Amino acid sequence: MYRSHNCGELNASHINTEVTLAGWVQKSRDKGFMNWVDLRDRYGITQLIFDESRSEKSVFEKAKTLGREFVIQVKGTVIEREAKNKNIPTGEIEILVTELTVLNQAITPPFTIEDETDGGEDIRMKYRYLDIRRNPVKNSLLFRHKVAMEVRKYLSDLDFCEVETPYLIKSTPEGARDFVVPSRMNEGQFYALPQSPQTFKQLLMVGGMDKYFQIVKCFRDEDLRADRQPEFTQIDCEMAFVEQEDILNIFEGLTRHLLLEIKGIEVDKFPRITYDYAMKTYGNDKPDIRFDMKFGELNEVAQHKEFPVFNAAELVVGIAAPGCASYTRKEIDALIDWVKRPQVGASGMVYVKCEANGTYKSSVDKFYDQEDLANWAKATDAKEGDMIFVLSGPANKTRAALSALRMELATRLGLRNPAVFAPLWVVDFPLLEFDEESGRYHAMHHPFTSPKPEDMALLETDPGKVRANAYDMVLNGNEIGGGSIRIHDKATQALMFKYLGFTEEEAKAQFGFLMDAFQYGAPPHGGLAFGLDRLVAILGGQETIRDFIAFPKNNSGRDVMIDAPSMIDEKQLNELHIQLK
Amino acid sequence: MYRSHNCGELNASHINTEVTLAGWVQKSRDKGFMNWVDLRDRYGITQLIFDESRSEKSVFEKAKTLGREFVIQVKGTVIEREAKNKNIPTGEIEILVTELTVLNQAITPPFTIEDETDGGEDIRMKYRYLDIRRNPVKNSLLFRHKVAMEVRKYLSDLDFCEVETPYLIKSTPEGARDFVVPSRMNEGQFYALPQSPQTFKQLLMVGGMDKYFQIVKCFRDEDLRADRQPEFTQIDCEMAFVEQEDILNIFEGLTRHLLLEIKGIEVDKFPRITYDYAMKTYGNDKPDIRFDMKFGELNEVAQHKEFPVFNAAELVVGIAAPGCASYTRKEIDALIDWVKRPQVGASGMVYVKCEANGTYKSSVDKFYDQEDLANWAKATDAKEGDMIFVLSGPANKTRAALSALRMELATRLGLRNPAVFAPLWVVDFPLLEFDEESGRYHAMHHPFTSPKPEDMALLETDPGKVRANAYDMVLNGNEIGGGSIRIHDKATQALMFKYLGFTEEEAKAQFGFLMDAFQYGAPPHGGLAFGLDRLVAILGGQETIRDFIAFPKNNSGRDVMIDAPSMIDEKQLNELHIQLK
Repeated sequence: MYRSHNCGELNASHINTEVTLAGWVQKSRDKGFMNWVDLRDRYGITQLIFDESRSEKSVFEKAKTLGREFVIQVKGTVIEREAKNKNIPTGEIEILVTELTVLNQAITPPFTIEDETDGGEDIRMKYRYLDIRRNPVKNSLLFRHKVAMEVRKYLSDLDFCEVETPYLIKSTPEGARDFVVPSRMNEGQFYALPQSPQTFKQLLMVGGMDKYFQIVKCFRDEDLRADRQPEFTQIDCEMAFVEQEDILNIFEGLTRHLLLEIKGIEVDKFPRITYDYAMKTYGNDKPDIRFDMKFGELNEVAQHKEFPVFNAAELVVGIAAPGCASYTRKEIDALIDWVKRPQVGASGMVYVKCEANGTYKSSVDKFYDQEDLANWAKATDAKEGDMIFVLSGPANKTRAALSALRMELATRLGLRNPAVFAPLWVVDFPLLEFDEESGRYHAMHHPFTSPKPEDMALLETDPGKVRANAYDMVLNGNEIGGGSIRIHDKATQALMFKYLGFTEEEAKAQFGFLMDAFQYGAPPHGGLAFGLDRLVAILGGQETIRDFIAFPKNNSGRDVMIDAPSMIDEKQLNELHIQLK
Repeated sequence: MYRSHNCGELNASHINTEVTLAGWVQKSRDKGFMNWVDLRDRYGITQLIFDESRSEKSVFEKAKTLGREFVIQVKGTVIEREAKNKNIPTGEIEILVTELTVLNQAITPPFTIEDETDGGEDIRMKYRYLDIRRNPVKNSLLFRHKVAMEVRKYLSDLDFCEVETPYLIKSTPEGARDFVVPSRMNEGQFYALPQSPQTFKQLLMVGGMDKYFQIVKCFRDEDLRADRQPEFTQIDCEMAFVEQEDILNIFEGLTRHLLLEIKGIEVDKFPRITYDYAMKTYGNDKPDIRFDMKFGELNEVAQHKEFPVFNAAELVVGIAAPGCASYTRKEIDALIDWVKRPQVGASGMVYVKCEANGTYKSSVDKFYDQEDLANWAKATDAKEGDMIFVLSGPANKTRAALSALRMELATRLGLRNPAVFAPLWVVDFPLLEFDEESGRYHAMHHPFTSPKPEDMALLETDPGKVRANAYDMVLNGNEIGGGSIRIHDKATQALMFKYLGFTEEEAKAQFGFLMDAFQYGAPPHGGLAFGLDRLVAILGGQETIRDFIAFPKNNSGRDVMIDAPSMIDEKQLNELHIQLK
């Protein structure tokens, strides 16, 4: 071992101990007769002192040659520091060095290895191994490990068995695009990398495994939006002989356990709202409920006057922005411009100031009187001092725009506090959603989700109205997990494939093994999957996942550090029976 | 929840309790007026009783319709069994059923769901979800989970951090064949699936992560020998600021912990032998030391007489098979035939019976006297009653053949007891091995392994003699883990690539990122990886890994259950910029 202690553990109780430390030179301060070096490792920083009067000359001189990020080993004595640093655990001591060995030199790093670095995103990714030396990244990876361990312990203690499912599976055109792997031994054929272990975990239920989980990499070859990765990690879970209620309870328990163990935060039982309620109240199926600003629907109290914009609208809907009555005309205009941006897409916005004296001042005073506006205030739960913002137009589009405004206002008002955690369940998702492009219904969750039995009849008459036994866990405006009770009989599964536009042959070719399996005694089952990357980021109080992934890819799916993907040679292509187009 | 209890937990203490159970019909015995059903789930079997006099008629009649593997739910009362079964935990009770619900029917399974099934390997793989219902497979998967959890706990408690490294990496022609993944977003380029996270874990050390581990899938596109899988799981570990001794101690500790926690077996400190010693003493770098039969080299005591076969041989070497002096001529001839098979390749075999009276009887009595044979007995540590078998020929080939004989004899003699665990370390592996085919040296472990400093000079003069800081952990004749101290400076790494036949450009193109990283302050580091599939199989007392993998592939790399790999459609190929050849 190159060290007797690490750089984070020595304190006043070690004074006079002979120690050996190893690590990186964080910085060195040369005062001529005295030379201090901050020695860093994963565990902390310990101050080294080289002193003209107390150190051997050769050691003292050698210390002056140390550059940033040199890897060194020192032997010395723990002594009390004169100027103590209360901010770090080792701040009471320093090491009077008697021996100094340079284990490896370092050229100057391309950015500073500090919490606040001068390196931009691109350069940090290219030299990710240096970026990982920085506390914010290093601590994010340690944090991720801690979360994953707690998840495993919690589920394992509840008799869940982690089963590794295969990575080389079969490509299915349904859902997102697969990454595929040409097979050398099976000419002209390809494996696919799993988008999730969905069918395998269901087969494990058919196989009687009863409670399964896996922390597992999944793959989607999608055009990458910001903060999406082509490979990502799921906490994948499935249980047999359960109903939706059981699954919600178990995984609410897991999340509550994580919040308590990792963050020291106790949360109450999670609220449960339906998808319909979420869409009507927040314009969104993953509402951030750390703050209020619920939607107030205003059709009844805003379409009875001569304001043609509202009268022509499918939906008139508003929110009360707390304490915003004092907004200036300029601030309001800026917000109106904000909602009119193409990304939000509103055509205009009406506002109502709820004055401190109980009166209202609006941009539509020409059409509406104080009583009308009082009704709007009631519907949006606006208090004196609030500002009501009202949008109108086609229902779905208007809700989406108001939802965007709600989030924007919350951000501006500082209501999205990353230290506050407000989880909830959204339940009763629609089974199907209509896809304009293909002109047919798609599974909203996936084709294995069971419809609610009481809605089955609607499949023939009004498929969009059929609700599923499907649920999402939402935390601070992010979907962190989702799942469903599955279909577990061949007939229903075949019916579902039919409604999703599969021919019998297609269904058999792609999912025949699952339908076959259902014939041999499949138990009722269901499950869910959490997105681990997102979960740890949110628990860690961050909005972006990238620092919680050791070696992330950029938006073109490239690893700029190792420079992958890359060309492969002709011989390799030949062996795989493929050629470039 | 479909049940109040599982099928493994009810016992006499529950008598008179009302319970709800759910599971599979293992079997049913219809005695006319009485009907017993064994109900099975992951946790055990509980006997249900339907009784003409005590059950409702409709329930009693319905019970008669139940077939094997039907999924049912029952309500009833726990009662004392008349004929108790001491062999199972639930053997004192049965359930007098009051309600019976068929949750799912089952067609007849293609093989029996019993510990000893009538299904062959192929059919079991096709219906793996049914195979998993059988105790031997189910318990192997549960066992694997337990081992993996213990590994994680042990390493995590020692401050190891599990870091997920990427699956979509870069193809390198060195080593085994890569599986590759065409990139849609980067035309003409490919990712590779990792054969191991080797370079990433080294970069994590450069990044200061200090102690890393990961239980991770790895991929090799090799022609599959029996009991090899294209995707397999490693316990991958790396540490910084350590020497070989530290790594051996930590991972010996892990293995000892597993043997104690999982098997209840305490083992002493692991023996350590050098590669040279292992080859000379066991003819093998992964010796099974549950039994003795060490090689005795006989050149000195067998090449002084007129026996031309021995005199012409590079090596004469023997082992003493304990208690085998009583072998008949027929048994001996069978063994001689066995060593002459092409897989073993000996050209003949000499034997010496060590009689109970201290005399010797050999197949070469014409050439050797009793004193000669006594010397052979001494060299092979043969006791009265043993049989010495002697092979001769070229050293390496002869050692390999005698090693095969040693294992075969041990199997025949019942010395390979799967309940006995004899771990050891083999150290000082050669750095390089000469590849006849390519006419150059290859890295025996991998190109990142550090040569022993004292052997560095030999790289120029006698590369095959250079020893590496490389080590294998061997358990019961299987290599279960291996690793090395790595090179951590750019110059040595560049030198190594040169000796391995890389041009500077090739080395830079493939591993430039690693050599770059070494310039920014790389700490001394090393590590190892265990093969988890093999480790759990051996700990589980099995020779084959297949039952410890939920969904294994066959020897053509096919998943016969889901029928993968498979064709993909033209559109998908086009998007990936490739076409079939």
